Amino acid sequence: MASSSSLSLSQAILSRSLPLHGSSNNSQIIPPSQITFSGLKSTTTSALRRRVLPSSIAGAAIKSPAIRASAATETLLKTDTSLVDKSVNTIRFLAIDAVEKANSGHPGLPMGCAPMGHILYDEIMRYNPKNPYWFNRDRFVLSAGHGCMLQYALLHLSGYDAVKEEDLKSFRQWGSKTPGHPENFETPGVEVTTGPLGQGFANAVGLALAEKHLAARFNKPDAEIVDHYTYCILGDGCNMEGISQEAASLAGHWGLGKLIAFYDDNHISIDGDTEIAFTEDVGARFEALGWHVIWVKNGNTGYDEIRAAIKEAKAVTDKPTMIKVTTTIGFGSPNKANSYSVHGSALGAKEVEATRQNLGWPYEPFHVPEDVKSHWSRHVPEGAALEAGWNTKFTEYERKYPEESAELKSIITGELPSGWEKALPTYTPESPADATRNLSQTNLNALAKVLPGFLGGSADLASSNMTLMKMFGDFQKNTPEERNIRFGVREHCMGAICNGIALHSPGLIPYCATFFVFTDYMRAAIRISALSESRVIYVMTHDSIGLGEDGPTHQPIEHLASFRAMPNVLMLRPADGNETAGAYRIAILKSKTPSILALSRQKLPQLEGTSIEGTAKGGYIVSDNSSGNKPDVILIGTGSELEIAVKASDELRKEGKAVRVVSFVSWELFDEQSAEYKESVLPAAVTARVSIEAGSTFGWEKIVGSKGKAIGIDRFGASAPAGKIYKEFGITAEAVIAAAKQVS
Amino acid sequence: MASSSSLSLSQAILSRSLPLHGSSNNSQIIPPSQITFSGLKSTTTSALRRRVLPSSIAGAAIKSPAIRASAATETLLKTDTSLVDKSVNTIRFLAIDAVEKANSGHPGLPMGCAPMGHILYDEIMRYNPKNPYWFNRDRFVLSAGHGCMLQYALLHLSGYDAVKEEDLKSFRQWGSKTPGHPENFETPGVEVTTGPLGQGFANAVGLALAEKHLAARFNKPDAEIVDHYTYCILGDGCNMEGISQEAASLAGHWGLGKLIAFYDDNHISIDGDTEIAFTEDVGARFEALGWHVIWVKNGNTGYDEIRAAIKEAKAVTDKPTMIKVTTTIGFGSPNKANSYSVHGSALGAKEVEATRQNLGWPYEPFHVPEDVKSHWSRHVPEGAALEAGWNTKFTEYERKYPEESAELKSIITGELPSGWEKALPTYTPESPADATRNLSQTNLNALAKVLPGFLGGSADLASSNMTLMKMFGDFQKNTPEERNIRFGVREHCMGAICNGIALHSPGLIPYCATFFVFTDYMRAAIRISALSESRVIYVMTHDSIGLGEDGPTHQPIEHLASFRAMPNVLMLRPADGNETAGAYRIAILKSKTPSILALSRQKLPQLEGTSIEGTAKGGYIVSDNSSGNKPDVILIGTGSELEIAVKASDELRKEGKAVRVVSFVSWELFDEQSAEYKESVLPAAVTARVSIEAGSTFGWEKIVGSKGKAIGIDRFGASAPAGKIYKEFGITAEAVIAAAKQVS
Repeated sequence: MASSSSLSLSQAILSRSLPLHGSSNNSQIIPPSQITFSGLKSTTTSALRRRVLPSSIAGAAIKSPAIRASAATETLLKTDTSLVDKSVNTIRFLAIDAVEKANSGHPGLPMGCAPMGHILYDEIMRYNPKNPYWFNRDRFVLSAGHGCMLQYALLHLSGYDAVKEEDLKSFRQWGSKTPGHPENFETPGVEVTTGPLGQGFANAVGLALAEKHLAARFNKPDAEIVDHYTYCILGDGCNMEGISQEAASLAGHWGLGKLIAFYDDNHISIDGDTEIAFTEDVGARFEALGWHVIWVKNGNTGYDEIRAAIKEAKAVTDKPTMIKVTTTIGFGSPNKANSYSVHGSALGAKEVEATRQNLGWPYEPFHVPEDVKSHWSRHVPEGAALEAGWNTKFTEYERKYPEESAELKSIITGELPSGWEKALPTYTPESPADATRNLSQTNLNALAKVLPGFLGGSADLASSNMTLMKMFGDFQKNTPEERNIRFGVREHCMGAICNGIALHSPGLIPYCATFFVFTDYMRAAIRISALSESRVIYVMTHDSIGLGEDGPTHQPIEHLASFRAMPNVLMLRPADGNETAGAYRIAILKSKTPSILALSRQKLPQLEGTSIEGTAKGGYIVSDNSSGNKPDVILIGTGSELEIAVKASDELRKEGKAVRVVSFVSWELFDEQSAEYKESVLPAAVTARVSIEAGSTFGWEKIVGSKGKAIGIDRFGASAPAGKIYKEFGITAEAVIAAAKQVS
Repeated sequence: MASSSSLSLSQAILSRSLPLHGSSNNSQIIPPSQITFSGLKSTTTSALRRRVLPSSIAGAAIKSPAIRASAATETLLKTDTSLVDKSVNTIRFLAIDAVEKANSGHPGLPMGCAPMGHILYDEIMRYNPKNPYWFNRDRFVLSAGHGCMLQYALLHLSGYDAVKEEDLKSFRQWGSKTPGHPENFETPGVEVTTGPLGQGFANAVGLALAEKHLAARFNKPDAEIVDHYTYCILGDGCNMEGISQEAASLAGHWGLGKLIAFYDDNHISIDGDTEIAFTEDVGARFEALGWHVIWVKNGNTGYDEIRAAIKEAKAVTDKPTMIKVTTTIGFGSPNKANSYSVHGSALGAKEVEATRQNLGWPYEPFHVPEDVKSHWSRHVPEGAALEAGWNTKFTEYERKYPEESAELKSIITGELPSGWEKALPTYTPESPADATRNLSQTNLNALAKVLPGFLGGSADLASSNMTLMKMFGDFQKNTPEERNIRFGVREHCMGAICNGIALHSPGLIPYCATFFVFTDYMRAAIRISALSESRVIYVMTHDSIGLGEDGPTHQPIEHLASFRAMPNVLMLRPADGNETAGAYRIAILKSKTPSILALSRQKLPQLEGTSIEGTAKGGYIVSDNSSGNKPDVILIGTGSELEIAVKASDELRKEGKAVRVVSFVSWELFDEQSAEYKESVLPAAVTARVSIEAGSTFGWEKIVGSKGKAIGIDRFGASAPAGKIYKEFGITAEAVIAAAKQVS
């Protein structure tokens, strides 16, 4: 397979020589010689502490005699406090100290969630710290991303290279690996980019979907090659956001049994007690959505409760599980716990000291006690063993199932099958006119045949967006091996779920669809696609007033401009069949960029001069009767209006004008071209330029210049047959001809 | 009060001479001489039909002998079918015929929802067809806006002037009053603009909030002057959208007892049976959200069930009610009912004929049988009487409570109290530096004192957005008279709820707040503010990389450009205290336009030359050492970067340059100015222009021209202290100086 990708299977396969301890069941695989479980369970001390300090008052004054020993040395503490307590407090203080040093950040969540964090990373999850991209790792998503110091502390303790002590010390500083919210593109070990609330939870649904799909496609009775859990911590804020409801409804519908979400139920959000805005019964809601729901009443010190809940969650295989874990935000801070003041600000030197006193923590900032360090150190060899075990299994799988393993490898490495581009259709001017949404479907179906990781669907508009892959059935609870995803009318989570799918494996290429105007419903998810470098293909049909009678609520106007302004988004508006194929080609090739395809509802002719190659340049000449790179006028069109520019050019040429027609299918791609190429298409000396696009003219001055003219629509649309609106709004060849005469 | 507003109280008061039949209870007020209820209840025939045709098979073949009489005349039918059946079928066929004539539209929902529509508009709701803006009317929202022919048919039958027969016949045509989705700005009688799913339901929550708030503020033990219900029909699509979950959670939290939502449970969405993507238990979910839930199992013909459900809903005064009404989409169409094919396309001539046969409808298209017409005709006099009764009550209220009535009148008419602008603060360069988010709070609190209809809040960021009005408490279930609204982390429904508040009464001015970047979560609602001409003030703080450590997930980049491209949005980015006051002033004055204020987290100095008056022009000169309108260079800044432009000008002037500094606080306002004014600020001859803004440069070519230079950020942000990011990204006075030298 010989992939050079850094995220590749080959990296995993390199460690084959390590000892094998893997097995296909779900329990954690640990070399017995290195660890005993006894030390990890709650000791009598911590059990006593639980009785002494019920969670309801835990935040107020935690001063049990066992903990108050301020002069305690490391050795003394070992006998006073269980190692789990100590590890949990290590996590808390790493968060406290990093936020304090940065004088910026959110200490409250890590202090409250440290117990579940410890149990997940130390006792439950299967991962390899030295290869954060090992394919079969358990995925963890901190949907409440502001609490990122929890995750950084856990990655640090587990042995991930990205988060060394110096990284913790440079929390939230320029160029650090520990930014203010978790960012997958900065910190290996972080799966997705979170912070905007609810997104991470929906990403987790996407990760779990990917696992369920791949497991169904590739596992064999004798080889469970895909087999991991997806864990997520979400907070009150995530639960209030509509996107999490959408995602939870789908997760329940799909029966994602290996998705386990921890709801950090701490009753505090930025505005104070959640009582002021959030009094719904979250547990009952999730049950109504088809989830298994467990309530851990003491999330602060109830380690065994948390462990039991996870065990129970794993036993329920046909439903996702939501574990509501009641915690105290800022647990351990005597004066700030259980208040909004600990949510998003450093504790302050005085309160840090008081918290150290209160939790009996005599160490310097950022110190990890030796016994904690030593305890966690096993994860590096264990992780290597886990991966090696899996690699051995995969070698066996390859031998037995060469076809399946080739497909799976492509998904794991992201290497595209050779010759895949040949599957794309091409057209001649004689090919029948068609809507680009239909041409898109031809491409989707062509790609589905050659790209093993291609899957997707629509937000209840499959028959309008034309997004069904005809050779596949629906991904559903009982048919998870299929590849058509039915998202329902849930655009926002659709985007975020696709982000999760794309970031699960480099070769998974999700697409999703709705009307272009409804990108407004999912813009936050699209932005995170762009930021987190997720190759999601957004198939956005009904891309202008050309949709006609549905009227202004359904007619995009400003949407092209709004995405051209967004960093790392490839906004494509193909004009016909060749450009639609070219758009898909480049969307697949740009492996770290989401693409948005704006596609027509209405029929469009196959134009002379369009091409897949031209599309790749973003802007290119489709016809020209000038010479010496000196046309009298340049007509520029995109998408459905390129046809109008061509018609106008025909008229103008009849009148003797030297006219160049340029297709401007993607501004971003044109921007990437050399100055020479740009000059060859839009020579600086030719200021007579007219653009036409059935959308806002905002931004077009850059292309047409101050002496040119941009024809577009700077008002909302209207409800009428499409042709009538085009005419009334002046999106016509006549308008282009008039403008061309005016400027040239 | 002498208001000249077309939506005003005065119009209502004109009809005082009409007879009074009003009372303050919730039952419908009907002059007994004009109507008997007996004819409106289900007759034996329809009861029999229910038995013969259980709803589960209703769509398949509705051919009871009573209905099959194809040769029936109007007189014969009267004896065969109850008047209710006939009225319901009139609604169905008006929808069928209009969609057929347009060959575009959605007949399925009106055919299924005609019974609940009939009962609402004919038996339950209180309204005055001849004054669609009567203040105390019941509000109705069709959240499933694609089914708008239901509403148009009902408005037509009720006697609204906007929907005459010719309007039905021009459904979905250019310039008609009957566009493809309900639009409040086109069709008096339509309360809000719907179509994008879930929006209308959240609007309805806003309408119900407004009623609860105004009732609590203005009603007296002897004068229930505010007293109406809000009804809403939503579909499966609305219920899948996250926004509806957000809104439902808040409606339950607030205990909006006079909100009654009908869930059209027809099991069909565009992709087919809802089983493929929507299997949650909606009723149980709404119960978990604190709603009262009722299930009407036969929504097709079960009129008494629907009536009983509404009665029960009204009896529950401390919770909103969701009535799940199971219907058959396209009821009556023998071959298309209960399938997606009837959702969004005309039935086709053959199926229309079959449906006429099946439902025994011998009439020509668009015909309203005389007895149905006669039956509905009472709503005009009854509506006038209702309003007159209310007017009499209001006259009495005015006499007894002059202060309250003056406030309420201002809310009803939208007339701003004289001198309100004087409340706005002004600043001098000696005033202390401050963040514009703080300066915004000063303005909010000043306006709260002088504008009786001013209310709003934040999506759980009140203490960051600085949006609390200090003289008021929280609007809550038991303190609805207060004006600080706590939306929780629910940006999307926050915007849509504010749309509902703004469209409830012309003098209600809602504001809402979050971080600027999270406009992405609520963009669909903001767009509908703009389209539906809702004066919502969006208080958007943390408006750039200036927020610092939270990093790129929280730092807006493309957002300014994306809203500048959106029609009818006033995007304002004030630089200091005077401009913040100026921004609020213009936001209040633009009564048909939403405004977005982008505000800084970081401190900014009070600049020389800024003013409220200048802000109103969008772009204006804040300092200039040139003469003859011929500066060497023009430096243009917005918001927090205006300070940088000013600093650069100081340096450049020291070097002898003639430098003009222009504040460009709002592009839209500048666009509205005369050509002369624009030339006086940005003379065409001066091409040496440098702009600076900590956001995307997209669109800035229009202002700086092809020879100028736009300094901005065309990548995602970073997590670091703000000053460091500014420096690293080159958003500095040094960069402006260098650019100025380069271009001049």
